Amino acid sequence: MVNVAVMGHGVVGSGVAEILLTHAESISRKAKEEINIKYILDLRDFEGLSYSDKFTKDFRKIADDDEVLVVAEVMGGVHPAYDYVKECLLKGKSVVTSNKELVAAKGAELLKIAQDNNVNFLFEASVGGGIPVLRPMAQCMAANEMTEISGILNGTTNFILTKMVKENLSFDTALKMAQDLGYAERNPDADVLGHDACRKICILAALGFGKHVYPEQVKATGITEITLEDVDYADKLGYVIKLIGHCAKLDNDKITAAVYPALVPKSNMLSGVNDVYNAVVVKGDATDDVMFYGKGAGKLPTASAVVADIIDCVKHLKTRKYLFWEDGDQNYVEAQENVPTRLYVRLTDADNSVAPQIKAIFGDDVKLLNNTVANEVVFITNVEVEKDLLNKVEKLQNCKVAATLHAID
Amino acid sequence: MVNVAVMGHGVVGSGVAEILLTHAESISRKAKEEINIKYILDLRDFEGLSYSDKFTKDFRKIADDDEVLVVAEVMGGVHPAYDYVKECLLKGKSVVTSNKELVAAKGAELLKIAQDNNVNFLFEASVGGGIPVLRPMAQCMAANEMTEISGILNGTTNFILTKMVKENLSFDTALKMAQDLGYAERNPDADVLGHDACRKICILAALGFGKHVYPEQVKATGITEITLEDVDYADKLGYVIKLIGHCAKLDNDKITAAVYPALVPKSNMLSGVNDVYNAVVVKGDATDDVMFYGKGAGKLPTASAVVADIIDCVKHLKTRKYLFWEDGDQNYVEAQENVPTRLYVRLTDADNSVAPQIKAIFGDDVKLLNNTVANEVVFITNVEVEKDLLNKVEKLQNCKVAATLHAID
Repeated sequence: MVNVAVMGHGVVGSGVAEILLTHAESISRKAKEEINIKYILDLRDFEGLSYSDKFTKDFRKIADDDEVLVVAEVMGGVHPAYDYVKECLLKGKSVVTSNKELVAAKGAELLKIAQDNNVNFLFEASVGGGIPVLRPMAQCMAANEMTEISGILNGTTNFILTKMVKENLSFDTALKMAQDLGYAERNPDADVLGHDACRKICILAALGFGKHVYPEQVKATGITEITLEDVDYADKLGYVIKLIGHCAKLDNDKITAAVYPALVPKSNMLSGVNDVYNAVVVKGDATDDVMFYGKGAGKLPTASAVVADIIDCVKHLKTRKYLFWEDGDQNYVEAQENVPTRLYVRLTDADNSVAPQIKAIFGDDVKLLNNTVANEVVFITNVEVEKDLLNKVEKLQNCKVAATLHAID
Repeated sequence: MVNVAVMGHGVVGSGVAEILLTHAESISRKAKEEINIKYILDLRDFEGLSYSDKFTKDFRKIADDDEVLVVAEVMGGVHPAYDYVKECLLKGKSVVTSNKELVAAKGAELLKIAQDNNVNFLFEASVGGGIPVLRPMAQCMAANEMTEISGILNGTTNFILTKMVKENLSFDTALKMAQDLGYAERNPDADVLGHDACRKICILAALGFGKHVYPEQVKATGITEITLEDVDYADKLGYVIKLIGHCAKLDNDKITAAVYPALVPKSNMLSGVNDVYNAVVVKGDATDDVMFYGKGAGKLPTASAVVADIIDCVKHLKTRKYLFWEDGDQNYVEAQENVPTRLYVRLTDADNSVAPQIKAIFGDDVKLLNNTVANEVVFITNVEVEKDLLNKVEKLQNCKVAATLHAID
């Protein structure tokens, strides 16, 4: 029998307890050990549960109990989660977590402590909820060098954009609907401003390319400025607007990593990822594109990923899984304005001189949309360094720039 | 240093050697051991390669060499692969394979021998080529009970159907194109008759539900009878025709498992899987639908999955991965005709009495297509047991049955 502790009894934590208790038999068969929840840490009272006797408000009980070999951290936030996880690892306990904020902020340090103490630190649930992503990347794709990762990493914003695209709802109306359905928080900033997706692309980049990427290094643009005009023009051009997290290796030993709303061609599999679903596309040098798709959040999907990590820790109490990356450095992520991209540009108050100007400045083969509203001009540029494209946009006269968005292939 | 042998130097085998040699440094870092190819078994001569000295035509050299701890079987076919793999496992060597025919025929037996000898038998490459599927199912989804698995499991037939749907090519023309591009064999039967997909759905069902499923138990229908008329009507009804491998748990402790061309709704992610790409959708009780997508075949994708399994074996020389299923039994797979389904039916030589007959027999809410060619009637039934639906189709008078195909949700 292996004793485990669950720190946090919110949405995910209660799901972890539920799965460990209801699936006890098949889980012990797979882990080859019975898994016993010895403690659940939460400051709140939970009475009347079949496992109410397991609750404690005192972290020291877990930290100081040598019988606890695996700890699941599902509290969220960096503090006190960081201190708790660190102490558990230092005391020789393996730790699993669903906490993307913690992994994005402290992943390299905690992986190093786990390595030094010959225990495991696993966090499959931190990206894509119940979708297997990190372990397949680290294990199944181990014979590949990764070159690029992109994905729809936030279910709330994908739900909102899907409602805007499919039902022509405004951003505000779609956000309200997401809040009413419990998909969005009352304060939706972390989702709609792209911060949540930013943490996830940091973790994917770190695992894929081997070096920590800090959220502060990654420019995140949210979806609050997306209008139904842009949605409609994108559709006419053969695209769908999605919030994309993207990272790739560059030629100069740096990487690019960013989160932005982008026009995604309808032929790209990511364009078909709707509602609260997430998807991650990983490009390996041997496999080419591989995609992982499913529900990126929710109580049971996320909890099932945490439990799978617990099972893996129990099976590997004496061996370490290969999951590691180095510390980051200040110059590792290229400034977004220096990265080549393709832009969608929407101009208003434009007169007849604008289309010829565009061709003169951006080239004859720029993709101009024909059937726009009167006095509006919409086009998609060729690929150039972003700041050069933005400089060119500024040169356009007799018009206003209403929107510039990335367009991917 | 760990010595390995590669049995077979065809498309996949040469890819395995290439990846192990070109990615040696990153692979040894991940495996925490240098991996040395000691032997390559092939009856043919390969001169002038940088590793020509490693070739042998004698299996005994590998079997009798106690220094060889891991063997990759990439010869294909059941014999002699089965005898070779069995002997290696009995001698305490871990074995990895890309051979779906072998795993579908002998998986349970070989997994048992591996267990008894405390070694590993891994076969990620046997389903989906380079796409991670089996390990994520067994590990990341370990906290789930699987209820249903469906997928596009054969790239050749998916390429042919994509050409029929997108470019209006006939089956024969599209097959010829697939052959010219090297996607289809000169004798394409294993692909176009559904046998290859059948082996893969057997492996997926065995892993997902815990019991061996033999290809002989699974009805496989190929795509040779699909016409452009069906493709066109499917499109008008909002569907795309795909070759689907499907298995699911039934209420009576049996399962259903089958391969058939099916109408897939355009809103279903599988409808967007085109060309030689494959995808597998796994439904778990906690995660709901999870999809794995990528190139299902090809030298480097498949070889990279074999190498990942080699790395995993090297890291787990003394522990067993959880990957196991029981022997099958004769009554485990329900006869396809007893399974509920939905049918697409195309009738020719039909007069005005047919539409009213359909509504009388199948119900008023049957989905009748309006704009058919003269004297043709097309409809999609509600869900009923297949043989009942087919009996009802036989009752229709004053028409001929040109096609009946499954329609999925």
